Amino acid sequence: MHHSEDISSLALNRLSTYLRCLRLLQESNVKRISSQELARRFHLSAAQIRKDLAYFGEFGIRGVGYDVASLCRRLEALLGLEREHPVVVVGAGNIGRALARFPGFNSGSFRIHGIVDNDPQKVGQRINDLEVRPSSELPQLVQQSQAEIGILAVPAEAAPENYRCLVAAGIRSILNFAPVPLDPIPDIRVKTVDLLIFLEELAYFLR
Amino acid sequence: MHHSEDISSLALNRLSTYLRCLRLLQESNVKRISSQELARRFHLSAAQIRKDLAYFGEFGIRGVGYDVASLCRRLEALLGLEREHPVVVVGAGNIGRALARFPGFNSGSFRIHGIVDNDPQKVGQRINDLEVRPSSELPQLVQQSQAEIGILAVPAEAAPENYRCLVAAGIRSILNFAPVPLDPIPDIRVKTVDLLIFLEELAYFLR
Repeated sequence: MHHSEDISSLALNRLSTYLRCLRLLQESNVKRISSQELARRFHLSAAQIRKDLAYFGEFGIRGVGYDVASLCRRLEALLGLEREHPVVVVGAGNIGRALARFPGFNSGSFRIHGIVDNDPQKVGQRINDLEVRPSSELPQLVQQSQAEIGILAVPAEAAPENYRCLVAAGIRSILNFAPVPLDPIPDIRVKTVDLLIFLEELAYFLR
Repeated sequence: MHHSEDISSLALNRLSTYLRCLRLLQESNVKRISSQELARRFHLSAAQIRKDLAYFGEFGIRGVGYDVASLCRRLEALLGLEREHPVVVVGAGNIGRALARFPGFNSGSFRIHGIVDNDPQKVGQRINDLEVRPSSELPQLVQQSQAEIGILAVPAEAAPENYRCLVAAGIRSILNFAPVPLDPIPDIRVKTVDLLIFLEELAYFLR
């Protein structure tokens, strides 16, 4: 099993996609599947599937295919998804509230344990079973929840300061929805998701 | 100027990022910038900037750098962002509502013209200056607004049907937030944004 730290985002995202597809197969009671059939059902590349999975060890049996349940478990372990990761959200605006309620962020491998905002009007609002707390309480929230991941859902101009607060509170992995590049900090991993970029990508093909 | 249709998502996303950075520079009244300085300020690669921009024509003057305003205009034209693209949203759940209110989706190159849902409890709700309409009105909404882009913000199980409805209504470009692969349809461009994949990517580095 290969455990290099320099695996690319693209390769990780493909493994996540395979896991997503395999779970759908499990729900449909499919026990075993070939790379060809997996590719056909989900519009993936069979060659890429074989290459990606071979890179992480021999998952399949030639001519027999993959055992769906076993491949799911091994991908979960490989991706670090076999346990729940506590998450905190900074920013209770539209995006922060939507993410705090997002089912995928609250099931299986992730759970939102708290949400903070520095706007007194937002503090105290309820979002499902969470109450928005003041940003000053972020350090206690991170400590109590043992949060490992922080979601930054604040406007661009507020992002650098709140980024530093998350790091100061002990968070090492940050999902940033602010459309602004954040200064790299050693040992801190930031994944920036600029939602507007996806619309801009579609606009290119409308010219 | 190169207008190949097979430019990669990654390259397009980098051009969007440069445009975002150049606009920040314009706000700070910076008139001219070198690739080195642009890279330094925004944690980009100077070599990649020069390569990307050279691929699309000669934007810069050696030793003088790029004219910020002119490069902004040319990137906007290249990316198809020099005019407003009308957008409709299908699904008025947490994500759909957040995106309909998202400032970046309602300024400059994009404007949300309508949002539909098939839940009678959501129909009639107000989201800023929009009223949620029933899904049955999607064809009229697309026609009236001349919408070019559809945002699919429905649960995975409802995605295929709503995808077909968007295409039947005349939409050719779709931003899909449902975590499910959609069947390819000729001439229809789909960009799937699986938010959970970004968290899973961070989880990998927490193992």
